Amino acid sequence: MPKLKLTYFDFDGGRGEPVRLALVIAGLPFEDDRVKFNEWAARKPGTPFGALPVLQVDGAVISQSNTITRYVGKLTDLYPEDPWQAALCDEVMDAVEDLNGHIGSTISIGDPEAKKTAREALAAGPMSVHLVRLNAYLESRGGEYFADNRLTVADLKVYSLVAHLRSGVLDHIPADLVDRKAPLLVKHADRLLKHAKIAAYYKDR
Amino acid sequence: MPKLKLTYFDFDGGRGEPVRLALVIAGLPFEDDRVKFNEWAARKPGTPFGALPVLQVDGAVISQSNTITRYVGKLTDLYPEDPWQAALCDEVMDAVEDLNGHIGSTISIGDPEAKKTAREALAAGPMSVHLVRLNAYLESRGGEYFADNRLTVADLKVYSLVAHLRSGVLDHIPADLVDRKAPLLVKHADRLLKHAKIAAYYKDR
Repeated sequence: MPKLKLTYFDFDGGRGEPVRLALVIAGLPFEDDRVKFNEWAARKPGTPFGALPVLQVDGAVISQSNTITRYVGKLTDLYPEDPWQAALCDEVMDAVEDLNGHIGSTISIGDPEAKKTAREALAAGPMSVHLVRLNAYLESRGGEYFADNRLTVADLKVYSLVAHLRSGVLDHIPADLVDRKAPLLVKHADRLLKHAKIAAYYKDR
Repeated sequence: MPKLKLTYFDFDGGRGEPVRLALVIAGLPFEDDRVKFNEWAARKPGTPFGALPVLQVDGAVISQSNTITRYVGKLTDLYPEDPWQAALCDEVMDAVEDLNGHIGSTISIGDPEAKKTAREALAAGPMSVHLVRLNAYLESRGGEYFADNRLTVADLKVYSLVAHLRSGVLDHIPADLVDRKAPLLVKHADRLLKHAKIAAYYKDR
């Protein structure tokens, strides 16, 4: 196995968490390089595209959230080999990144009124559309997993989004939006938190 | 081979063009369902996430640009099998989607002054960062291809972006930005246009 170093912000969520969880589930050792928010401005220019996560693999660097998640998914056997199942997994991961991108673009809005307007439009628009669709996908695939009839990185990606939205940390995004629009995603997240490896990991942190 | 129907907007570019070009290069037949811009409002609710492209595969639907591009890349042997080379291919595709997302978010800005400000910030910020990085990646990988030492969907994705930016169709994005920031990408695009299958395709359209 290659030597892995994941660089991401110092919190249990966001675009880095699905990668950490995949490695935890598979029991693969990795260096968990956590960047404090006040260190970010200095470290940003050293990243390929001015963003985290970044993964070092035996010293070689790759970036982009879903690129890293997919690569680590292959290392940890949490990514489908069948091309169609891989596409179903990818589509879900890309849909989550759609929302991460929308959320990210509202974080930089300085004016409080403009931020409120943008967040409310996001919650009523793309966020609701995506949550409803992801809920329907999960239901149509049996209700438990998003692809390949087993745990894949798509599940970890959706879990991380759902946990973030339900935490209520994003002003003007109702903390109960997921519960109202996509109740199956709430059950899905609750099940993932009971996964033995994930439960043990969060208990120890 | 499955029966393929690609639905995308009626122009030779954007997020659908890399998929069309991959299918053209491989000589795989597909239905090229082109949506006129004045038809889009009526068709948008029928798409999984309110966006194009959408691909039907023997009647089953997948969406999300890079999901479709990767799946078709596998069908057409234009996607790396090796996981590390696949990651290098994915990273480039995701970086192009970063910029497509940024461009998309400026298209909906109604106020001309606000649009100008956003476009100029995009050109000076992420667009320049990404173009310079993609240029450096291409150079470090021999100057011809982005992954696997051969043509992959990453090349088609970058080509489509570069052609779009150089067309000058985006107000306040200088048409010579790519030439100034990423001259190797211009040569790369020129070479792709000379690919026998691509040249024949555009000659006939």
